[in-house]
Amino acid sequence: METAEISNLLPFLLRRENVARYEDGAVIICDRRKYPFEKAFVRCPDVESVARAIETMVTQGGGPADAALYAMALTARQVAGQAVDRQSETFEAARQRLVKTRPTNTAMARRLEKAMPVIKEALGEGKNVEAALLDWIEELRSAHYQTFARMGEFGASLIADGDGILTMCFAETSFILALALAQKAGKHLRVFTPETRPYLQGARLTAPSIHELGIPVQVIGDNMPAYVLSQGKVQKYFTASDLVTLDGHVVNKIGTFQNAIAAHFHGVPYFVFSLGADKQRPDRSSITIEERDPAEMKSCRGVPTTIPEIDAYYPTFDITPPHLVAGVITQYGILSPYDLHHYYG
Amino acid sequence: METAEISNLLPFLLRRENVARYEDGAVIICDRRKYPFEKAFVRCPDVESVARAIETMVTQGGGPADAALYAMALTARQVAGQAVDRQSETFEAARQRLVKTRPTNTAMARRLEKAMPVIKEALGEGKNVEAALLDWIEELRSAHYQTFARMGEFGASLIADGDGILTMCFAETSFILALALAQKAGKHLRVFTPETRPYLQGARLTAPSIHELGIPVQVIGDNMPAYVLSQGKVQKYFTASDLVTLDGHVVNKIGTFQNAIAAHFHGVPYFVFSLGADKQRPDRSSITIEERDPAEMKSCRGVPTTIPEIDAYYPTFDITPPHLVAGVITQYGILSPYDLHHYYG
Repeated sequence: METAEISNLLPFLLRRENVARYEDGAVIICDRRKYPFEKAFVRCPDVESVARAIETMVTQGGGPADAALYAMALTARQVAGQAVDRQSETFEAARQRLVKTRPTNTAMARRLEKAMPVIKEALGEGKNVEAALLDWIEELRSAHYQTFARMGEFGASLIADGDGILTMCFAETSFILALALAQKAGKHLRVFTPETRPYLQGARLTAPSIHELGIPVQVIGDNMPAYVLSQGKVQKYFTASDLVTLDGHVVNKIGTFQNAIAAHFHGVPYFVFSLGADKQRPDRSSITIEERDPAEMKSCRGVPTTIPEIDAYYPTFDITPPHLVAGVITQYGILSPYDLHHYYG
Repeated sequence: METAEISNLLPFLLRRENVARYEDGAVIICDRRKYPFEKAFVRCPDVESVARAIETMVTQGGGPADAALYAMALTARQVAGQAVDRQSETFEAARQRLVKTRPTNTAMARRLEKAMPVIKEALGEGKNVEAALLDWIEELRSAHYQTFARMGEFGASLIADGDGILTMCFAETSFILALALAQKAGKHLRVFTPETRPYLQGARLTAPSIHELGIPVQVIGDNMPAYVLSQGKVQKYFTASDLVTLDGHVVNKIGTFQNAIAAHFHGVPYFVFSLGADKQRPDRSSITIEERDPAEMKSCRGVPTTIPEIDAYYPTFDITPPHLVAGVITQYGILSPYDLHHYYG
């Protein structure tokens, strides 16, 4: 598919320029905390403000990786002209600061790592590092959208006319493209999206994005998937993944795992979109699950859900073992979770 | 246990007089929608306002049954002196209005049915129906607290020192007594309580009530039980039940079922508190699951969680099949879910 054709299929939130963009020496990030109530953007003039934006959930899913790469371009602009050694140190410090924002999101860490040789080469050749990075990011993002489109096509091929689909959190471009392409092919479908507490990505991001495509979608509570499954309303369960280990464990937003157990209980297959397994994560013991401030679990859009003296617990992701995964949808096809080592991401 | 001893073990919300009481020709109901932010009571001067209070979730769990019975006493006061036939019609209309408020809560319907002969007898003998009903309700409630205490003792016997306990929604007196009695016996425990969207009974009612007992408790999202189970932090899963069918299907707040699937997946037993099976509900086909206004699923404490044009779905209860139930804790003991017909409630 052409890049423009892909973009035309996508809802507001997933259009390339709305995820994150580079503008006049600043990283502009769509503020997903405010969506769909407001279409607001955060302007980050330096690495620290990008890091804080990622930490404070301005963006999530694929957003942090894009924003982090632009933060490196921003660094390049700001250190241009300094001694090469000093520049290298600053880039390395920036990379480390950005990686630290999200211990579980290894896609961001991996892309930042891939940016380092680009920087090194440009520095070595005395080129404009900012321009070199921006060219590289542009190419990378275009390639990613091509990959998303391929994954979307594989996803759409799994959807049958009349399917009810369960998802979790915000499964982003590949999933939304799968729905859009299934619809384009004349298949009728409906989607159930758990609201995804505490940040309500399901209610705020997924449901409005699917609604924008004209596909019927219903928000349910995070406590409802098993019941909806038991009613026979769901034929497929699809999610994105924050990372997949080489041995097929899927790390994704908390709740993904219990939905996968419930889907399995009801004989409904679970498919996960992934750019590929992370070769630095052989198995579940190599995963660090981010635990965020329990206070975040005690409010909803700023309104307290209990009194201050009550304790809470907020693990952000969970791990679904491969025997609950029917297929991993990658650019290479729909793979067995037990065969990912043949297809490094 | 003595009634006073039971009451002393209970937190604010479960003390008899705070659930519902009869006062000067009005039913006073603790407003659980406002707890724990406020300790407020709603004063209902007639059947219609009690019915509306039940419909609008002022009270839930065991509360509706108590409030509905007091509403009958209120009716008695208001129709006293009228022709017996006319009184009978009014009582029947009141009963029907109250039953209609909660199609799934058959405990309330059953108790209202038991109140009818009390009314009929008092009417027939020309006695003060209000006084007769209040005496009967007083006895019934005392007997219930004795039953709760017995169930609490059975529940406590299942808890081992060091146990982590998962629950769902607000499992009320029997469960809270089980925790209190286990603690009194020197057992150390900790509880995980899913917040229970959309009304947050777990975060607002369960967690503060357990905290009041001095037992460590953490609020988690409804999307987190499976992950907490996978960490080995939970040894027992306990809930109340809105009804249990004769063949052992447990109807309780939505989410109970998927937690039971997740507990089973992790080898953690699920125990349910019940006053006994409902002999008018032989199996799952005899259950009506209440579906409430989808709009209720699109806000949290009055704050919208998505934009108005997005659709939602809000089934209030779910059904857990008997093979996921390790035991039904009744006044007769901890029963197999397959043997409930020997012990009618």
